[in-house]
Amino acid sequence: MLKKEQIADRFRTLQDDICRRLEIADGSGKFLEDNWIRPEGGGGRSRVIEGAVIEKGGVMFSAVHGPLPEPVAKNMQLPPTDFFATGVSIVLHPHSPMAPIIHMNVRYFETGTGRWWFGGGIDLTPHYVVPDDARFFHEQLKNTCDRFHPDFYSDFKRQADDYFFLRHRQETRGIGGIFYDYLDEKCGLSQEKLFEFAIAVGETFAPTYAELLLRAQRRPWGEREKRWQMLRRGRYVEFNLVWDRGTKFGLETNGRVESILMSMPPTAQWVYNFQPEAGSPEAETQAWLRKGVDWLAPER
Amino acid sequence: MLKKEQIADRFRTLQDDICRRLEIADGSGKFLEDNWIRPEGGGGRSRVIEGAVIEKGGVMFSAVHGPLPEPVAKNMQLPPTDFFATGVSIVLHPHSPMAPIIHMNVRYFETGTGRWWFGGGIDLTPHYVVPDDARFFHEQLKNTCDRFHPDFYSDFKRQADDYFFLRHRQETRGIGGIFYDYLDEKCGLSQEKLFEFAIAVGETFAPTYAELLLRAQRRPWGEREKRWQMLRRGRYVEFNLVWDRGTKFGLETNGRVESILMSMPPTAQWVYNFQPEAGSPEAETQAWLRKGVDWLAPER
Repeated sequence: MLKKEQIADRFRTLQDDICRRLEIADGSGKFLEDNWIRPEGGGGRSRVIEGAVIEKGGVMFSAVHGPLPEPVAKNMQLPPTDFFATGVSIVLHPHSPMAPIIHMNVRYFETGTGRWWFGGGIDLTPHYVVPDDARFFHEQLKNTCDRFHPDFYSDFKRQADDYFFLRHRQETRGIGGIFYDYLDEKCGLSQEKLFEFAIAVGETFAPTYAELLLRAQRRPWGEREKRWQMLRRGRYVEFNLVWDRGTKFGLETNGRVESILMSMPPTAQWVYNFQPEAGSPEAETQAWLRKGVDWLAPER
Repeated sequence: MLKKEQIADRFRTLQDDICRRLEIADGSGKFLEDNWIRPEGGGGRSRVIEGAVIEKGGVMFSAVHGPLPEPVAKNMQLPPTDFFATGVSIVLHPHSPMAPIIHMNVRYFETGTGRWWFGGGIDLTPHYVVPDDARFFHEQLKNTCDRFHPDFYSDFKRQADDYFFLRHRQETRGIGGIFYDYLDEKCGLSQEKLFEFAIAVGETFAPTYAELLLRAQRRPWGEREKRWQMLRRGRYVEFNLVWDRGTKFGLETNGRVESILMSMPPTAQWVYNFQPEAGSPEAETQAWLRKGVDWLAPER
């Protein structure tokens, strides 16, 4: 069995690596670091950036332990136990409405009785859906998944569709990606192999997003696109505060507010009953925001 | 016992009256009306304004009925039953950061087995707390409450403090006001009298807010105040999407999204780990955002 410290150390290195690559992709922004200690055990290293390309982003590492808070245990249907959890969490909001918002998380969880599992994923929220970018994004995820298990991509893609869904609007947050939780040796892979998979997901993140930012640089935008971005960011807020289990849970169980809410966009807007004009690029994006699209061969 | 239609009609007239007064206070904005029908029974009349003084506001009337949705019944600890609910709900976001956000709700609820109660209240969220305005606001509420019951103001003021509270930040949404729910004849007043009270609360709303807008007109503001307003609006979003029972509930039970989310500010911002400068007006406002302040004689 892997040592907790070994996993945490590797995640910390992953954070370093991703931050370095994102600074290169941004070209001018630098991450600011913020270390924090959890009174009940453990702590974290929060890194935030306000750059030329990335308007607001966070790459957060944490490794926490102690008695599992009672509401968390109840929610996970676990008896009272100690726990250890470590992971890297990322949300990036670009300046350009033509570039997508991206979210990544890889995490490891272990109970005092030796139960363990991995969770995580990567998903993309373009302000404007570009089918070719969506295909590229999903191809990268599939390539990584396929190196480990033939079912991972299709299973985790479906789970992302189900998870990143605004039920009150009956629309997906974006074009999904992969999402998995409670992943343990029952899937047929050893703990070591699943840890390798988590790192592989983490390493897929930066080059994939760098390519998407590069593509977006070629696309001009103006007031109209900025306005739509603000509304799409409003939807991002709605998902995170109403439906995201991690956010809700963190806020309800006294988590570190600033780390949890680093996912919030820098700005957002709400317009009563806004309807994009029929046939507009905004209406087209809206039409893509549904479950079950095969992004490897997208069809309207 | 009062007739349901009688209560709904009076609430509808209240909506008319409030909209007329708010258009006068705004000076140029006009309410747009939107009628909607609830497939399971009843419907509503939504009115929204984008004015010169009120940047974004909604004054919503609804009267709905049918079988009580199961999750709602469960939440209210009621057996399966029919229900009837009617009310007026208001949220107004002013352009000026020197003017406060205001929220009002008066509602009546009845079950198929003849149980009934009133709920509602008014509360204020200044971007900058002005103790003299806060006193004026609470005086108006107290005057209205005192006409009906000597304990209403202090009881309902405490309930507002407890309800409009961002637990994850350990700060109140604003300066509170009054909040009550499940108010029935056990308080010593008849249904007729409690209905009168609901209307009195409703009639307190427009003149009180008009006075607060008038006071705010005299206060200059610039970029700095606007930036703070955006952050305060971010907190308003956090409260509504994370803690507000009505919003959470509406979204989780398939309510009319646009009516529920009319409470969202037109714009909002989030800055990682923002701390107002010590001694600044922003820090002063922050210091007021706590429970238990006696706003009739505010003391730092």
